[in-house]
Amino acid sequence: MIYRFTNDYSCFAHEKIIKRLLDIGYEQNIGYGLDRHTENATRLIKEKMDYERCDIHFLVGGTQTNMVMISSALKNFEAVICVDSGHINVHETGAIEGVGHKCLVTKGIAGKITVDEIKNVCKLHADCHMVKPKMVYISNSTEVGTIYRKSELIEINKTCKDLGLYLYMDGARLGSALSSIDNDITLNDLANLTDAFYIGGTKHGNFMGEALVLINDELKKEFRYNIKHHGAMLSKGYACSIGYEVLFEDDLFFEIGRHENECANYLETELKNLGFKFYSNSSTNQIFPIFKDKLINEIKEDYGFEIIERLNNEESVIRFCTSFDTKIDTCKNFILYIKTKI
Amino acid sequence: MIYRFTNDYSCFAHEKIIKRLLDIGYEQNIGYGLDRHTENATRLIKEKMDYERCDIHFLVGGTQTNMVMISSALKNFEAVICVDSGHINVHETGAIEGVGHKCLVTKGIAGKITVDEIKNVCKLHADCHMVKPKMVYISNSTEVGTIYRKSELIEINKTCKDLGLYLYMDGARLGSALSSIDNDITLNDLANLTDAFYIGGTKHGNFMGEALVLINDELKKEFRYNIKHHGAMLSKGYACSIGYEVLFEDDLFFEIGRHENECANYLETELKNLGFKFYSNSSTNQIFPIFKDKLINEIKEDYGFEIIERLNNEESVIRFCTSFDTKIDTCKNFILYIKTKI
Amino acid sequence: MIYRFTNDYSCFAHEKIIKRLLDIGYEQNIGYGLDRHTENATRLIKEKMDYERCDIHFLVGGTQTNMVMISSALKNFEAVICVDSGHINVHETGAIEGVGHKCLVTKGIAGKITVDEIKNVCKLHADCHMVKPKMVYISNSTEVGTIYRKSELIEINKTCKDLGLYLYMDGARLGSALSSIDNDITLNDLANLTDAFYIGGTKHGNFMGEALVLINDELKKEFRYNIKHHGAMLSKGYACSIGYEVLFEDDLFFEIGRHENECANYLETELKNLGFKFYSNSSTNQIFPIFKDKLINEIKEDYGFEIIERLNNEESVIRFCTSFDTKIDTCKNFILYIKTKI
Amino acid sequence: MIYRFTNDYSCFAHEKIIKRLLDIGYEQNIGYGLDRHTENATRLIKEKMDYERCDIHFLVGGTQTNMVMISSALKNFEAVICVDSGHINVHETGAIEGVGHKCLVTKGIAGKITVDEIKNVCKLHADCHMVKPKMVYISNSTEVGTIYRKSELIEINKTCKDLGLYLYMDGARLGSALSSIDNDITLNDLANLTDAFYIGGTKHGNFMGEALVLINDELKKEFRYNIKHHGAMLSKGYACSIGYEVLFEDDLFFEIGRHENECANYLETELKNLGFKFYSNSSTNQIFPIFKDKLINEIKEDYGFEIIERLNNEESVIRFCTSFDTKIDTCKNFILYIKTKI
Repeated sequence: MIYRFTNDYSCFAHEKIIKRLLDIGYEQNIGYGLDRHTENATRLIKEKMDYERCDIHFLVGGTQTNMVMISSALKNFEAVICVDSGHINVHETGAIEGVGHKCLVTKGIAGKITVDEIKNVCKLHADCHMVKPKMVYISNSTEVGTIYRKSELIEINKTCKDLGLYLYMDGARLGSALSSIDNDITLNDLANLTDAFYIGGTKHGNFMGEALVLINDELKKEFRYNIKHHGAMLSKGYACSIGYEVLFEDDLFFEIGRHENECANYLETELKNLGFKFYSNSSTNQIFPIFKDKLINEIKEDYGFEIIERLNNEESVIRFCTSFDTKIDTCKNFILYIKTKI
Repeated sequence: MIYRFTNDYSCFAHEKIIKRLLDIGYEQNIGYGLDRHTENATRLIKEKMDYERCDIHFLVGGTQTNMVMISSALKNFEAVICVDSGHINVHETGAIEGVGHKCLVTKGIAGKITVDEIKNVCKLHADCHMVKPKMVYISNSTEVGTIYRKSELIEINKTCKDLGLYLYMDGARLGSALSSIDNDITLNDLANLTDAFYIGGTKHGNFMGEALVLINDELKKEFRYNIKHHGAMLSKGYACSIGYEVLFEDDLFFEIGRHENECANYLETELKNLGFKFYSNSSTNQIFPIFKDKLINEIKEDYGFEIIERLNNEESVIRFCTSFDTKIDTCKNFILYIKTKI
Repeated sequence: MIYRFTNDYSCFAHEKIIKRLLDIGYEQNIGYGLDRHTENATRLIKEKMDYERCDIHFLVGGTQTNMVMISSALKNFEAVICVDSGHINVHETGAIEGVGHKCLVTKGIAGKITVDEIKNVCKLHADCHMVKPKMVYISNSTEVGTIYRKSELIEINKTCKDLGLYLYMDGARLGSALSSIDNDITLNDLANLTDAFYIGGTKHGNFMGEALVLINDELKKEFRYNIKHHGAMLSKGYACSIGYEVLFEDDLFFEIGRHENECANYLETELKNLGFKFYSNSSTNQIFPIFKDKLINEIKEDYGFEIIERLNNEESVIRFCTSFDTKIDTCKNFILYIKTKI
Repeated sequence: MIYRFTNDYSCFAHEKIIKRLLDIGYEQNIGYGLDRHTENATRLIKEKMDYERCDIHFLVGGTQTNMVMISSALKNFEAVICVDSGHINVHETGAIEGVGHKCLVTKGIAGKITVDEIKNVCKLHADCHMVKPKMVYISNSTEVGTIYRKSELIEINKTCKDLGLYLYMDGARLGSALSSIDNDITLNDLANLTDAFYIGGTKHGNFMGEALVLINDELKKEFRYNIKHHGAMLSKGYACSIGYEVLFEDDLFFEIGRHENECANYLETELKNLGFKFYSNSSTNQIFPIFKDKLINEIKEDYGFEIIERLNNEESVIRFCTSFDTKIDTCKNFILYIKTKI
């Protein structure tokens, strides 16, 4: 195996974070996220957001964060609206249903939910014999690499407000989304346009961790109880926060995103030049070219990637994912390599 | 603050583990615990256990591990028997009830369950109008620092077999228990005398992680589904396993236990010499002296410890907990310090 | 209001059942379904099924029965496949998700699931990052009034066996289905071709009650615990069974079905003669004509019916439902009435 | 078997209720509790309560009512305080834990919770590592036949208010409690001193049904969603309400209670005269004499009763329960009978 483009969580952590762990050594910290590093990481993120009136909790992974958030926000009989490709709908082994909530699924367009879909779901779920829609879940970047535009987010936010829905953004790959050349959204926009969102760390240079930002006051109360109740409270909470301190004390969080996107954009451009078609238009760190199965078989021992979907008898959609550790030279070598195979 | 004896998770990780993380650098690994480090850590633990026919899964924390294990092993209407001081009963914010199961509580003796108690609970829960007892949960070391003797474990195991109950051991502090001077139990004994147990990492030098060992075949099937369903699957699973490799590739796991116990034993002996009484007899890394409230107030800015229970108008039970990073000199200094206060 | 065709649960109970309640008077019975009437109803149903090796439990309503059955049959991470119009998917206020299970939804054809859909869902859910399909849920008659043919059931049963899925039939309106002129399925067929099904009482002349028939041995064990655990055990269990005795001691169950269908078929034929189109082809007690909204408004004070779906700016699908108490003369009068309105 | 004193749900329904069902015949009603009988029963109960600002929902049984109520009122991590003999703690097969909530158990005195116990539980559960107490559950009459005095209820209510707890009363046998010669509580008192309570029908002459009265506005919102979500919504909701109309349109509810108590008091007095000791002091329809096991064996074929607890090698606590159908002559005959056996 020359290099894995399989995902963005193949390497432990960004070198700056490892170095910090080494520096900290046997420093003693208070447990359960009540320590100075968590406090400092929280402050740094709020500063980058330019938004003070929110709570931030650091959890371990994406499924866990979605599960705790949704379980905490919704009553028994309330449901969450999402597109059919949404992570909570497909790739969480029923974690959301496991805590009691139905995913009300729409088709979406390019991995993104539309205002009409949200309105329609609410119209169809009108009495107590059906679940009550109460939250819209969106991912940014989406599961197919696309991103929301600010105008879209404004519209969705307005619709949610009108319909009494919470708007929650899964930001597992938010760093890549906000660093995309097509992006016009800031962290401050998210504070103003969502009720809650999380800033993914695991897929963005930290060795674990998702920073869940609670904007809407209704969602804040006794949240630490919810975390512990779902087995999601870290005794060494500071471990997770130290990485966030490093990511946010200067511009590392966005640097990583820009770097990942650059690598992915390079791959996309070059593959397009070579005539490959793509499943979706992505300006983020996941790209989805369509490869011949024959080619896939030839290269799969040398490079790692994910097979997303068989399209027909001879072609499949595959995913290349770039990471903080991906080198632009590795990408160049891959393109040279692929040229020898086609 | 001179030093925190507050708990055994105040420091990130043992220096050997931090060093290993540094060595590994940007090595790429497969996600979700299917990597070489997890494979290797599993092999090393099995060797130390001298037991091959078990499955090992690495989870993040104790509450999460208990929740996933119990939820996976029990049917809807089945319950788990434990002593009233049991971690699942008191300190998991209802995580076990959250996944649907009642804790059937007994008084216990010195934090340990008795065979008679188990039999009695089963006798009282005899029809479908009550929950069905199906598991016995024990902690080793217990929440009050005591440990099970092999003869006790044999008896409990036999009772469980007779009554159709699973026996599950919470090993958050197993390293300290098995390294105690009073201990006569081996990892191999646990393989033969329990249906499942976990080997605590978080409180034993790793920066996170509990290695859940499934012995009984009935508990093994599709366990990874359970992990993911409860939001407990780490994408960077290898991160947790690397620590276990370090702990088990030589004798570090037991060395840490012995060291922790030595520090705690020193404190206990010296405090007894000074006339302090103790709440329980512990040969492990948690000790529970009874201090005057006046003394507590005098020293609490200089040393960290937990107040467990107010005994009367002037005395409280407190806990000192030693850790991999505790130095014997720190303990000596504390004793010198306390002499100046009494 | 001249007459409600709104549903088949507008009247308390068939007159023979009310009479039996009167006869029984202050007879004392054992509680919780361990009484002679439950025993007798069970025997009578087994005789009608010509099948001995099953367990029968009497529950109160359809949603409850589905919830208890599915919760009991599936593990945490397992899911149930159903068509999008399936009662569990739409009209149970998330009861199935409430007990932790995802509904994997297919489009279906005329309210019925196809073998290809089942296979496809299983193919797409292939690893532990997704729920594991474990049950197929079908309704007979379906939510749009159609019924399964024996050949279809044989095929679905075979597919389920091949894929390791349970097949469960919701029989809220089974009496109408099995009494349809298009039906070629017997109760004995259901015993041989499903793992579990229920025989609806509430919508078929009893004042409450669904008789859940467990065929597959795997589903039988400790089922009464499940019932009680979900708050579904009746202290006066005999109350429900008495109705089933009356329904099954002679042919009343099928007589009611035939009568309901006759009334519905009459309405369907006559409405078709008058030029009305229908949303689905039903030979059971629910029919789905398409009415002009103007007409709906004119008649809705005189006759009860359900509005199912707005089709366009001037037409809607409505539902007429016949019941044990519906008189054929009432149907004739309605047709005369409708002629005056068009 | 001459007569069963086993419980108060051995007979279908009071003759006046059966007669009413007969009178109603094939009258058509709207489903799901939106009918005229439910409206009327609600009005009648409110009049008897002399309290207008409450919501009343009719559910099927006690466990279901407790499960729906507690699940609706509490958040994930919140718990309910009750005495160890409380129905929710012992005899609901983990239904409360099944919907995610821990029962925090106290010893109680004579089946009743004390203010000190409530305060103590709250004091011990003070941070997010433990469940948060949020409700006090009491039964009236209690599981051992005792009743709360108004002064006790006032004190408990005050304590709950001070501590931010809901007070919920399980009234499975409220009719007997409020009709006891020792009772000084009215329905109006319950409206003023609890947040919610239910008026038991199943054990009080109706063939099913518990009328759940929601006083506190916080508990009312969207409650019908909760009912349906837990599979507890009756399509023939009117069936249950008809019985309540009969019970409350004149004084039948209280007449039944007085009659039951009279029978039980007679038995208690006469058995005491014969020298029998009792496990608890009951002025309600459950009495708990202590019988020799030898005597129990001699009479158990002729009279039904429950064996509650083996006291020692030769004696047991048994329960006699009187019902709306119990005749005073039957009680007299039993006393004559028992005289021949001792």
